[in-house]
Amino acid sequence: MTGPFRKIVAVLEGQTLSPPPIWLMRQAGRYLPEYRETRSRAGSFLDLCYSPEHAVEVTLQPIRRYKFDAAILFSDILVIPDALKRNVRFVQGEGPQMDPLDVSEVATLRPDGVLDHLSPVIETVRRLRQELPKDTTLLGFCGAPWTVATYMIAGHGTSDQAPARLFSYRNPIAFERLLDILADISAEYLIAQLDAGADAVQIFDSWAGVLGEAEFQRYAVGPVARMVRKVRGARPGARIIAFAKGAGMNLKTYRQGTDANAIGLDWTVPLSFAAELQKDGPVQGNLDPMRVVAGGRAMEEGVDRILQVLGSGPLIFNLGHGITPEADPEHVADLVRLVRGIT
Amino acid sequence: MTGPFRKIVAVLEGQTLSPPPIWLMRQAGRYLPEYRETRSRAGSFLDLCYSPEHAVEVTLQPIRRYKFDAAILFSDILVIPDALKRNVRFVQGEGPQMDPLDVSEVATLRPDGVLDHLSPVIETVRRLRQELPKDTTLLGFCGAPWTVATYMIAGHGTSDQAPARLFSYRNPIAFERLLDILADISAEYLIAQLDAGADAVQIFDSWAGVLGEAEFQRYAVGPVARMVRKVRGARPGARIIAFAKGAGMNLKTYRQGTDANAIGLDWTVPLSFAAELQKDGPVQGNLDPMRVVAGGRAMEEGVDRILQVLGSGPLIFNLGHGITPEADPEHVADLVRLVRGIT
Repeated sequence: MTGPFRKIVAVLEGQTLSPPPIWLMRQAGRYLPEYRETRSRAGSFLDLCYSPEHAVEVTLQPIRRYKFDAAILFSDILVIPDALKRNVRFVQGEGPQMDPLDVSEVATLRPDGVLDHLSPVIETVRRLRQELPKDTTLLGFCGAPWTVATYMIAGHGTSDQAPARLFSYRNPIAFERLLDILADISAEYLIAQLDAGADAVQIFDSWAGVLGEAEFQRYAVGPVARMVRKVRGARPGARIIAFAKGAGMNLKTYRQGTDANAIGLDWTVPLSFAAELQKDGPVQGNLDPMRVVAGGRAMEEGVDRILQVLGSGPLIFNLGHGITPEADPEHVADLVRLVRGIT
Repeated sequence: MTGPFRKIVAVLEGQTLSPPPIWLMRQAGRYLPEYRETRSRAGSFLDLCYSPEHAVEVTLQPIRRYKFDAAILFSDILVIPDALKRNVRFVQGEGPQMDPLDVSEVATLRPDGVLDHLSPVIETVRRLRQELPKDTTLLGFCGAPWTVATYMIAGHGTSDQAPARLFSYRNPIAFERLLDILADISAEYLIAQLDAGADAVQIFDSWAGVLGEAEFQRYAVGPVARMVRKVRGARPGARIIAFAKGAGMNLKTYRQGTDANAIGLDWTVPLSFAAELQKDGPVQGNLDPMRVVAGGRAMEEGVDRILQVLGSGPLIFNLGHGITPEADPEHVADLVRLVRGIT
């Protein structure tokens, strides 16, 4: 007995599909008028994340419009610090904020209760699997420990996450403890998403690019490897995409180091290097989101290059970072047609 | 007849010195109480840049304290857009701002008058050469066209300079024209600095890291190569350091592509890769500035690793990015002692 054919699952298991399947990071987002409409009714941003009804609705919106090959759970990487009672809030126009974590507080973080707090998100996954077309891959996700820790330490985003780098230099033992805590609860969270019906999960390490070489191994590779081991220990064969934005040549050892099925590539990764990485397994990416905003020839050129260099191996077409609010939904329709070779 | 021995000049000409000479990016800055004192008397930040008296004073302050092997002209990369009448202002706590450049305005930019506007900066260089110890290298600098253009287009700094990327996709011809204009006036500006007594100049491409592979060649390598050609055409043998922050593996071709004497390395450049780059010529960098803030063991470890891997080739010791305001001046003193092997 075989289930429905889900293209992104197939690529994650090593198949090459032509045309490649496509989804976009942040595909449920502000560039869509229907998202803005639901968002305005949902209350705060976190209310939206914790409302299965609304979160399911916004997750499905881009699937209805574009028939993307994957839906990704609508949520945020900062629900983990929120569940750890760090007083997370999303201030309009200012980005996320939370109480900055002092070194003395690391030992006070309480992982128990986190999954209870996140049960509405798991319920969203469950409903999504029921409501999605059978051939649409459902992706869960969470933030990587390093990236989540950078926000927890600074209390907000910064241009180069200097506060977390400094914390790690000053308090290496407490910092590794923090990463371990985050890795373990994030692994539990991903297991719950898989159990609720996610076909695969993506781990977002959005701030991997500010780490030096040794620190990348210790703080980006190590904790994600720990998560992969935990998730696969509990759910053998679990499919995992790891996306270390800005990691550059550190990606050479990232797949092997983390044992992820596929690695995500941001838009700065040279395609010749991407092709090398693809020899070891599936890759996902890496169109510059600004090419979608520009549309037309700039978008066509970007798509052509990616398909030319990576199209003959296991590829999940995606952007190199989340789609931005100013992207024209018509450009996204053009993009999907371009990738699928529909003229 | 030979002049005084200037260590950083010697390294730029290919010599290996042990211990390596040292200076720090933003060494004249807010971490020094004497800088804050002068700054408070100087008026606005741009007033400080355009006052030879005050700019000389703050440039000399770190030389007096630490006897760094180079002094770097106190100025800012945004004096070029200021000279182009883009209404540059530095708003306390908000970073630099200027009038955002529309595509229709590129053709209206007037390079004539720029050097007149910048004559106080050139006067600062002249006075510095007179007042500096004879064996201290004097460095001039300017921003690279790509980086300066990113600020001009957005009107301010952004997290990933998406506005300039978008502008380049939408208006590739106008964008190249803008880069040409910036390259040409920046080259003239560097020539004037060299004529006033600078031993070498550094070109800062602080935002090179947000460019894709093809764009890096076109927008980072190309314009800097154009500048190097212009400067060396006018002043044969001119010594140039090119610093493309975040360029990662693109650095492989950066030295050859730009023909710079030395290349700067940010703190994320793996040391094994740095050693490869050093085989082709001098390198400068790359201690994480947060290690200086942390001080102690974290700083020692960082210094040791750099000296171990890069110390036996042509190296200018520096940070991987500017020193930050919260750095303790005592840690900087420790750093200088560590690099110079004084215990």
